Parts: sequence; C-alpha cells; structure tokens
Amino acid sequence: MSAEFEMGQLMVILTVLFILAFSASAVFKRFGIPGLIGEILIGVLVAAQIGDWSVMEFLGIVRPVPGDPDSGNFYWNAIEILAQLGVVFLLFTVGLETKVKELTSVGRTALLVAVLGVILPFIAGYAVIMMWDGNLYHAMFMGAAMVATSVGITAQVIKDLNLMSASESRIIIGAAVIDDVLGLIVLTMVAGMARTGSIEIINVTGIIVISSLFVILLIVFCAKGVPRIAEKITAAIKRKEAEGRERKLKGILFPIALIVCLVLSSFAAQIGLAMIVGAFLAGMIFAEHAEEHGLIKKTNAITIFLLPFFFVYVGLHIDTESFTSELLLLAAVVIVLAMITKYVGCGAGTILGDRERKSSAHIVGIGMIPRGEVGIIVATLGVAITVNGSAAMSADLFAVVVMMSVVTTIIAPFMFSRVFRKKYGKGPAA
Amino acid sequence: MSAEFEMGQLMVILTVLFILAFSASAVFKRFGIPGLIGEILIGVLVAAQIGDWSVMEFLGIVRPVPGDPDSGNFYWNAIEILAQLGVVFLLFTVGLETKVKELTSVGRTALLVAVLGVILPFIAGYAVIMMWDGNLYHAMFMGAAMVATSVGITAQVIKDLNLMSASESRIIIGAAVIDDVLGLIVLTMVAGMARTGSIEIINVTGIIVISSLFVILLIVFCAKGVPRIAEKITAAIKRKEAEGRERKLKGILFPIALIVCLVLSSFAAQIGLAMIVGAFLAGMIFAEHAEEHGLIKKTNAITIFLLPFFFVYVGLHIDTESFTSELLLLAAVVIVLAMITKYVGCGAGTILGDRERKSSAHIVGIGMIPRGEVGIIVATLGVAITVNGSAAMSADLFAVVVMMSVVTTIIAPFMFSRVFRKKYGKGPAA
Repeated sequence: MSAEFEMGQLMVILTVLFILAFSASAVFKRFGIPGLIGEILIGVLVAAQIGDWSVMEFLGIVRPVPGDPDSGNFYWNAIEILAQLGVVFLLFTVGLETKVKELTSVGRTALLVAVLGVILPFIAGYAVIMMWDGNLYHAMFMGAAMVATSVGITAQVIKDLNLMSASESRIIIGAAVIDDVLGLIVLTMVAGMARTGSIEIINVTGIIVISSLFVILLIVFCAKGVPRIAEKITAAIKRKEAEGRERKLKGILFPIALIVCLVLSSFAAQIGLAMIVGAFLAGMIFAEHAEEHGLIKKTNAITIFLLPFFFVYVGLHIDTESFTSELLLLAAVVIVLAMITKYVGCGAGTILGDRERKSSAHIVGIGMIPRGEVGIIVATLGVAITVNGSAAMSADLFAVVVMMSVVTTIIAPFMFSRVFRKKYGKGPAA
Repeated sequence: MSAEFEMGQLMVILTVLFILAFSASAVFKRFGIPGLIGEILIGVLVAAQIGDWSVMEFLGIVRPVPGDPDSGNFYWNAIEILAQLGVVFLLFTVGLETKVKELTSVGRTALLVAVLGVILPFIAGYAVIMMWDGNLYHAMFMGAAMVATSVGITAQVIKDLNLMSASESRIIIGAAVIDDVLGLIVLTMVAGMARTGSIEIINVTGIIVISSLFVILLIVFCAKGVPRIAEKITAAIKRKEAEGRERKLKGILFPIALIVCLVLSSFAAQIGLAMIVGAFLAGMIFAEHAEEHGLIKKTNAITIFLLPFFFVYVGLHIDTESFTSELLLLAAVVIVLAMITKYVGCGAGTILGDRERKSSAHIVGIGMIPRGEVGIIVATLGVAITVNGSAAMSADLFAVVVMMSVVTTIIAPFMFSRVFRKKYGKGPAA
C-alpha cells in the first residue's frame, strides 16, 4: 500500500496548497492586487524556515539541491508536473484568445521589444558579476538568466483584467515568444562556451534555424493553412448536421486541441524552447473558432485546477537560509538592474517600433519584467556545468538568480495591473 | 536543466500515451465497444515485452517491482498521479450527476448487493488458493483482492451511455461505495492477521466506525444540510445580482467545489478508503445545482484530459514476462470465479432487495465485475507484509491478481454496455 499511501499523502499536499493559494488569491484580489502575487507568496511562506521547521518539510516536500535535480523527492516532482502543465494550459488559453492577424500586425514592434529586452539585461548581468567576482562564466550565466521573460505571469494578469485584445497585450505576448527564441540562442552560446571554451558556430546556427523555423512556420500555418482546413471542417459539420450526427464530430474537437497542445509543447521542449511557446502557438491554431466551440471555457476549467500550483511552485524556490547580508546586497542590485534594463530595453523597442505608441512603452516595459521560472532554469543549467573543476554558476549566485526571478515576478504584476488599468480604466479587479 | 529535461521527456510520454489512448478509444467506439477498453489495451500493448524491448522501456518508464514501490521511476509516478487525479475527477462528476434522493431510494438494495458481492468472491478466492498452495495468508489476500470493485470503470460506461439516471446505475454506484467500506474492513482484518497473527478487535472496530460514519454523515449532510445552505447562497446571489456583481460570486463556485473534492478525497485516503469514494460524495454535495452552474461541464473538461491516463495506467500493470503456463491456468480459474461470484452475489442482492427488479439483476451483476486498480492495490499491500520470513502474497499470486484485475476490467464494460443498451436501447455508442 506504499504506492497508495504516497498518493494519499500527495493528495493532502495538493489540498493544502490549493486551499492556501485560493484563499490568498481571494484576499489579494479584494484589495485590487493580482491574485497570483498571493499565490507566489504562499509558496514563499510554505518554504520559509522557522528555526529548523517549515510547512514544506512538515508536508514532506523536499526541494532539490542546486546542481543535483535528483535530490528533490517525489512530492516536489509531483508539484512541478502539475505546475508545468498548469502554465502550459494557461498559455494554450492565451493562444486560443490570440488571433494571428492581431499578432502579426504588431510583429515589427514585438521583434524590436524582444531584441532590446534581451541585449540590455544581458550586458547588465554580465557587467555586475564581472565587477563582483570577475569570473567570466558566472558573469555569462547571470547575463543569460536575466534575459529570460516568463510570459505566464503577465498573461495571467492580462486575462484577469480582460485586456487580451489591447495592443500592448499583443506586443508583450509576441515579444515574449521571440524573447524565448533569443534567450535560447544566448543560452546555447553561453553553455557552449562554458563546456568547450569556444562558441560552436554549427551548434548555434542549428539552434537559430530550428527554433526560428518552428515559430515562423507555425505562425504562417495559422495565417494561411488553418482558415482552409477550418472551412472544410465546417462544411463537414454542416453535412453531419443534416444527418443529425453533428454532436459526435463536435465532441472530439476538444481532445484534438489537447493533442495539438501536447505535441507542440513537447516539440518546443525537445528543441530547447520553453514548453509554453509551443502551447501558445498551439492555441493560436484554434483561435478563430475557439469561442464558438467552447474550447476556451474547457481549457479554462483545467487551468483553474492546475495553475495555482505553478505560482506556488515559483514561490517554493526561495531558500531564505542561503542568504548572507553581502549576498542580499548583490541580489538587490541585480533585481533593480533586471527591472530597469528590461523596462528601458522593451520600452525603447516599443517606441522604435512605432512612434505613435509612446503611451504603450511604459506598459510593455513593465509587462516584460517578470522572469518567473525561466531564469531559475537557466541558473540550474549553469550549476550543472563544470568549468576548470568548479560549477559555471556558484550556489551563491544561484540563490541570487532565484531571488531575482521571484521578486520580479511578484513586483511586476502589481505595477502592471496599475498602469494597465490606469490607461484602460476598466476590467474587473485582477 | 535536468529538471527541465525530465519535464520535456515526460511531456513526450504524456503526448504519446494520450494520442494512442484517444485513437484506440475512437476506433473502439466506432465498432460500438466502450472506448476505455481500447485505452486499457493500449496500456497492455505499451507494457508488452517484444524480446527485450517494449514501448514502455523505450519511453523510459520503469514499473515498480512488486513489494518495492520505490523501484518505479519518476515517469511511472507521474503517470500514476495523473491517472489517480483522473479517476478522482471522474467520480466527482458522477457524484455531481447523482442526487442524494436517487441514491437513498435504492439504499436497501445497494446494501444487499454490496454485502453479497463481497462475501461470495472472498470465499471463492480463499478456497482456490487454499487448494492451490495451502498458504493461509496467500488465500486471505487473494480473497481480499477479489472483493474489490472499481466503480470508475462502470461509471465511465454509464456516462458514455447517458444512463446516469437509470435505477441500475444508482444501485451500482451506491453498492460500489458500500463495497469499498466493506472491502476496507476485510482488508484491515486480513492485514492485521498477517501482521500479528490475530484480528485486533479494536483496530477493526475503529475502521468500521470511522469509515461508516464518514459515508453516512456525508449522505445525511447531502440530504439535510445542503438544501439549506444552497438556499442561503441562492439568496445571496440574488442580492448580488441586484447590485450587478453576481459574476464574481459565481466564478468562485467551481474552485470551491474543487476544494471540497480534494478535501474529501484526501480524507477518504487518510482513513484507508479509496479516494474516489470521497470524490463521489463531494460531487453529491453539489449535485442539486451542478447543472445550472456549469460544474459538470467544467469537471468534464478536466476529466477528458486526465482520465485516459488512468485506463492506460491500469493496462500498464500487466507484466507478460511473469506468466508460466501453470500460472496462466490459475489466473484463468481466478478470473472466471471473480466474474461468476460477483455476478451471482450482486445479482442475488438486487433480487433480494426488491423482487420487482429481476430484470435489473443481470445488469447490476455485470456492472460490479470490474476490479480496476483496487484489486492491484490490495495485492501490493500483501506483497509488502512479511509473515514468517516470506511475503504474505507471493510474486506469482501478485501477477495473477493483476491479470484478474485487468481482464475483468476489460471484459465487463463490453458485456455491460451490451446488456444496458439492450434494456434501454438508447444513448450514443459507448
């Protein structure tokens, strides 16, 4: 019964986390603060050490030691699975609500936002660590970790505010997808240098070609291929309706949409992109007809169950024990730079892309700030690579990256929902 | 990136299993066979050894060795988590569609069905193994494993056939809940005897009191408490509607329903019952108003994603390598006895409960046959307990129980959908 016992214990853990997340989210929303901030803080609280004790330990969850992912236990992995599936379904829903024309119309601006939003944070991260300990590899990995944008966080706030169709929302989502491709390229170069001491041109070129092709081909498919296929399916449904058998055909659209989401998320992960990029593009395939077939409502139901585990999971990464006052100072500097460079880079990109969008620059700049789990993943890779007998990313700097990721993820949605509501002055409390 | 890598690999596994399950289910439905049979067979196929190779190994899934649950790997555990959540949400949906009056009106019959459906299979299992190897503990655990009914399987067929409101459906669901309580009592006695050599009266009495109280109190709460609470909430919603703020209140009903489902499932597992008993009772709390608030549709969406993993997971347990021809013979005898004794016991219970239900006896008897994962869990416990230096359940007999569980689970829905459709002659192909 050990397997059953473990499942029972896991259910208790999931129940406790879900109730805490739901309550915190409800309280925060009442005060006009995005609910996900409450959920992340629950994660931080559950992981917080009170003497030798923490709720996380009490529940039997063991967080992996940086550099040794196998050191986490079954319950940590289980929460990670539900968390990752949750954010996959969130981005799938966002895709379902994003029509391809809306995205391509802001394409030029999104590209500039992504490029500048990658260059400035990388330079800042690199420079700070070169001044801090002068280790080239530490500096490169800190730069790469500061590049990442986690669109999951901003997307949730946008959905809460009901502002998916605002032009800023589309720029942010588009830029986040491109950002992920650029981030992957940066990471490949940095990891390659740490492993072999030089950038392997063939490797990097391959990554650039494959990841760009994946995104571009899917967007072209959404724009050109999907309308034709949809026409044929609509005709088929009409024929079936004449025979009174249309329910059967409609019932399989949702599982098929799930399959497309799973396939593209898996594929994105296999070529090194974030799964959520695949999930978002999968959603966009069905966007034109998602509303009428109830796909959004159905995916939303799955998201309501799974997504709270994602935000709690982000918060669970904070390990208060590892902070010395010196390290806290470095973390503060990194956090401030991470926010300013993204804000300036992405804001400048918005204005360069379209001079009439000056009022949008502020919103886009803030919307791109949250690093979410992506920065943590980059740092994890750095800890796992050994250069000259020591890790390419020290445990201290890993703690700084986690701090930076979680704090930007908590602060940005708060600011974002304020400026967004200020401009549009509508939508329910986030 | 190992954690990310693992997640990427897991996504590939989930994608492959989901696609295979969906395709098999679609093909089987086309021929009028319940789709879940196709899904279980996919599990059997994926686990099947072809020489030294199997799809399961190729995907990197490692099944735990009987008696050592920790020997399975991360991917096996991940599938188990999604599988168990899937069947929890299935039974939650079944609860949402079961009004408490419909259940209590068949209470007497359900009780008799459950009692006779427990006694006959236990005696048969006990007798066969006493004749086979004469080991008392082997015999008791085989009896206990044959007692279990997995209502998840039958419930899915009932839902596919759209016959939730048929009296036979209510008898089966009610009997399955009582069956689980009785099965727990039998298992407690058997495990206690194996561990200490005697039945601990206090222990057994405690189990009887706690598990019966849990079920009875919840059913009374559904009948008496819920209508009053619902009245108050409806009044509150009406007040809010006058203020134009009703959407907010309605939006939280679904997460609250999820919380109740998680809490009662966890609690059921903690007191030793199956989680699905808690999930079913949780659903029943919301049954009166589930339709109007869209709870069924939302829970269904989650089930569509998670449930295929449950049926595949059941099939994955079959280990073809462990079968000798002698063992296959024993398995055949056990399977036939498992089916006949459940059928006769539950059929007789139906007729004893209500003499006018003779035509229902056939349907109820078949509906109670599938053992699903519950029999496997019982056998796992037996393998983990040591008596006089050897396991209370041998590895050979474990293989027989798995075979019995999977085969009854595959055959019964096929027969069940035939007899059910023969009587009611309607509903879509299952």
